[in-house]
Amino acid sequence: MTFKTDIEIAREARKLPIQEIGGRLGIPAQDLLPYGHDKAKVGQDFIRSLAGRPQGKLILVTAINPTPAGEGKTTTTVGLGDGLNRIGRKTAICIREASLGPCFGMKGGAAGGGYAQVVPMEDMNLHFTGDFHAITSAHNLLAAMIDNHIYWGNALEIDTRRITWRRVMDMNDRALRDVVVGLGGVPNGFTRQTGFDITVASEVMAVLCLAADLDDLRHRLGNIVIGYRRDRGPVTCRDIGADGAMTVLLKDAMQPNLVQTLEHTPAFVHGGPFANIAHGCNSVIATRTALALADFVVTEAGFGADLGAEKFFDIKCRKAGLAPAAAVVVATVRALKMNGGVARADLGRENVSAVAEGCVNLGRHITNVRAFGVPVVVAINHFASDTAAEIAAVKDYVAQVGAEAILCRHWAEGSAGIVELAERVAALAEAGTAAFAPLYPDDMPLFDKIETIARKIYHADGVIADAALRDQLRAWEAAGHGHLPVCMAKTQYSFSADPNLRGAPEGHSIPLRELRLSAGAGFVVAICGEIMSMPGLPRQPAAEAIMLNDLGQIEGLF
Amino acid sequence: MTFKTDIEIAREARKLPIQEIGGRLGIPAQDLLPYGHDKAKVGQDFIRSLAGRPQGKLILVTAINPTPAGEGKTTTTVGLGDGLNRIGRKTAICIREASLGPCFGMKGGAAGGGYAQVVPMEDMNLHFTGDFHAITSAHNLLAAMIDNHIYWGNALEIDTRRITWRRVMDMNDRALRDVVVGLGGVPNGFTRQTGFDITVASEVMAVLCLAADLDDLRHRLGNIVIGYRRDRGPVTCRDIGADGAMTVLLKDAMQPNLVQTLEHTPAFVHGGPFANIAHGCNSVIATRTALALADFVVTEAGFGADLGAEKFFDIKCRKAGLAPAAAVVVATVRALKMNGGVARADLGRENVSAVAEGCVNLGRHITNVRAFGVPVVVAINHFASDTAAEIAAVKDYVAQVGAEAILCRHWAEGSAGIVELAERVAALAEAGTAAFAPLYPDDMPLFDKIETIARKIYHADGVIADAALRDQLRAWEAAGHGHLPVCMAKTQYSFSADPNLRGAPEGHSIPLRELRLSAGAGFVVAICGEIMSMPGLPRQPAAEAIMLNDLGQIEGLF
Repeated sequence: MTFKTDIEIAREARKLPIQEIGGRLGIPAQDLLPYGHDKAKVGQDFIRSLAGRPQGKLILVTAINPTPAGEGKTTTTVGLGDGLNRIGRKTAICIREASLGPCFGMKGGAAGGGYAQVVPMEDMNLHFTGDFHAITSAHNLLAAMIDNHIYWGNALEIDTRRITWRRVMDMNDRALRDVVVGLGGVPNGFTRQTGFDITVASEVMAVLCLAADLDDLRHRLGNIVIGYRRDRGPVTCRDIGADGAMTVLLKDAMQPNLVQTLEHTPAFVHGGPFANIAHGCNSVIATRTALALADFVVTEAGFGADLGAEKFFDIKCRKAGLAPAAAVVVATVRALKMNGGVARADLGRENVSAVAEGCVNLGRHITNVRAFGVPVVVAINHFASDTAAEIAAVKDYVAQVGAEAILCRHWAEGSAGIVELAERVAALAEAGTAAFAPLYPDDMPLFDKIETIARKIYHADGVIADAALRDQLRAWEAAGHGHLPVCMAKTQYSFSADPNLRGAPEGHSIPLRELRLSAGAGFVVAICGEIMSMPGLPRQPAAEAIMLNDLGQIEGLF
Repeated sequence: MTFKTDIEIAREARKLPIQEIGGRLGIPAQDLLPYGHDKAKVGQDFIRSLAGRPQGKLILVTAINPTPAGEGKTTTTVGLGDGLNRIGRKTAICIREASLGPCFGMKGGAAGGGYAQVVPMEDMNLHFTGDFHAITSAHNLLAAMIDNHIYWGNALEIDTRRITWRRVMDMNDRALRDVVVGLGGVPNGFTRQTGFDITVASEVMAVLCLAADLDDLRHRLGNIVIGYRRDRGPVTCRDIGADGAMTVLLKDAMQPNLVQTLEHTPAFVHGGPFANIAHGCNSVIATRTALALADFVVTEAGFGADLGAEKFFDIKCRKAGLAPAAAVVVATVRALKMNGGVARADLGRENVSAVAEGCVNLGRHITNVRAFGVPVVVAINHFASDTAAEIAAVKDYVAQVGAEAILCRHWAEGSAGIVELAERVAALAEAGTAAFAPLYPDDMPLFDKIETIARKIYHADGVIADAALRDQLRAWEAAGHGHLPVCMAKTQYSFSADPNLRGAPEGHSIPLRELRLSAGAGFVVAICGEIMSMPGLPRQPAAEAIMLNDLGQIEGLF
């Protein structure tokens, strides 16, 4: 049996004109700004006109801790959206945009897979509608204006050693991580050490994804702290005078992008903040727009549920006033096997006991998500190598913890393979049993918020932190930032801070290494481990094989 | 009397749907890739289908040496296009895209002015259709792959001291001119000194503007020399393996953009290479597309005719096989006054003798353009402060050198104000008197090419160059680059290398300071003076005043 590749399936897709997709949601053609014939941005005026409309039901797709075996979170998000439409629920999906840089490193897109894909996948993995380029420009304009302010006399008395605002590029370029700028003498300004992050790590990205509208966007951009004076007083983007021009640069990028799945389900693909130093969800404006236009909205959050779902609930839902109706935890037999100790090379062989053992990881995620008051169903994303006994082991385990695991074949069959999950999700959501509440209140002290997440979600004994870090948190509380939620930055591979600790570890502690204030985005980043905010390219970058073939089609990108 | 500002006029424009503009040129709607409702890219398949079509007449708009008084080259290009349409000639215009970075420094757009504008001007001065972002990405992908190649073992044995490929950003950011990258130890690679240029200075920009199609684009990208080995052998982009992926990144950017003037003349706005270290013209693919679709195509070239027209003729026309039918040299009474020695503050007062004296600058440009076998007419771009006597002085002077100067009021009146020029241009072009030939043959030695330009166009006594520079030219000739044309980089304010020498200087010499090989674009850059390839922001950047107003309109950008 041979399978078609994702790109082969995508190329065969019969896309509808984007105006027709918008029409399914009641968006008039004149309110869609087309980008080619298969992509469009939804106009700001139309979005404003949606205020007060009844809201659809929000479904979160999350997953067990990721392993190299693959879980298929985006694929399941797409499949579930198609499935809900198939069973008569008017559904849209909301996912993140892909980062350009990593496409040239390792192969792999971000538009789902098999018969559960969003198209046009080539565009989504390249420039798409230019949002990330706009974010890069806005970020770097602020950087240029900071150095320019210093060059012309530094009236704000910025301490050039304490500038925290770096530059960004949507590229995997390790040589830019740590740089010295302003060499070459007087005409080039003051020499100082700084660096570049990848664009998705920009606070501007997180701001865009959390802003309610253009006014809120400008307000949040203005709040960004770019560095400190010698007296340690903060200097903001507003002090530099860059917030207005950055808003202008981001005007179009704030409009959600509309595309479609292979089965013509409307898909909002908008925003893509890093899931480690930011919150890892698509934009609030896209989610709200979708909720005003569809009965069901299926969305996803980055990494496993310990990081992705927690930040989705505690940052995005809390701040945007969203209340999810149900959650799907995606697992695969292969990934559960790896959580049960099987090496990647041995994944092809049946191993029921390893599957059963790995289910503790899944079980803890189910319990965690329920702690937010959101009902859970498990999707087993089917692989051809799964055996009946292995699948039964997962179902049995999930039944023991009082939930249901449903086998889904959307990758191979599209919506026809995911009807059962769609029916169960619709029933759960329509039963109205959800009683969403974030994990901690706004007024809890910042350190206690970190510790609450560590204990309740990571099942750690506690958080280890230097006095300096605790002092920093107290200083931010004194400066009025105590109400902010915490954005955890931790390895995605384990509940603990050790990426090799699979399953459901206990008795570990979470080492707090570094703190960052994202005053514009509106959260405090708690870094627990090594966080790479500028990736490098591998020895043999994918870029070397990327090219146009004789038909003008892109080869090597996927 | 009060005038409306450019932005007020632009906001009042009644734009036609871009499909209707394309329809005027016979472009089917399905071959236009829309970007919003008022911008589109012309599809590659449609462009390929134009091969062999009869070609329209190409009109070059060039100018006297620029002064702070302003000449209005783009405004006249737009006005002449509208005027030719008004008198019944099916006409399109071809201009360059604007660079984003400088918009945040000094005010000023690049879409014409008054009632001779291209719209949507806000978009054209911001991200437009993303072409420059694509060029930035392609350029920086190559840079990342170079450092990555060295990181993983440097199999090509690149001498890290001799890497000529820098990085780019579409931003005025002086702090990036001279930087050290790769600090921070082993994981970040090898430390070396490099820098950033503004995106329009990228050789990728020049390559895109000179490439005939996507195959030619990939071929030229592959030819780019990125640096040298210890044995001084060149290392190319093809050696790095980046040409395929760069082509993929530039796939959409290679498609010309179609917009419209206020009077609905189709306008191709595509490409924007720096007019100093590159050739300063819009793309060959846009010009060729326009020539296949319209009877007349009006285009412009950067700076005054000594730089802009010479490079348009000797680089773009030579390489693309274009033969202009006529040229318009734009002058203003104000700028001629400044060439005649009047200070900017005194421009408001009538000064007929200064105008007459400044006309020597205009006269030499007329003679120079005629030397290429192209008939010339002069456009006097009218300002309200011009007096009848001053205008008469210009007309008299131009008549003495055997040409005609026509007063044009397109800024204030649109096409109605430029009918006489349009009639004269049409007559000149249709008379078929043009006999275009470049200034020097391909097989002339490189140094002789530089000297030919200096003597014949700049009226210099000669070129001063170190032996090392002459050796470099001979080395490139030995390496097979001797057939390339020369791209002069010199101050635009004078025929000489001294920006303060206005009028028509004689007896000066041109100091050759530096040489660069643009093997991908296909020219040798001869730098005669200081060339700034990364601008800085002024003390009070325009960005500080740029914002969205309460109506959601952009303020401060223009």
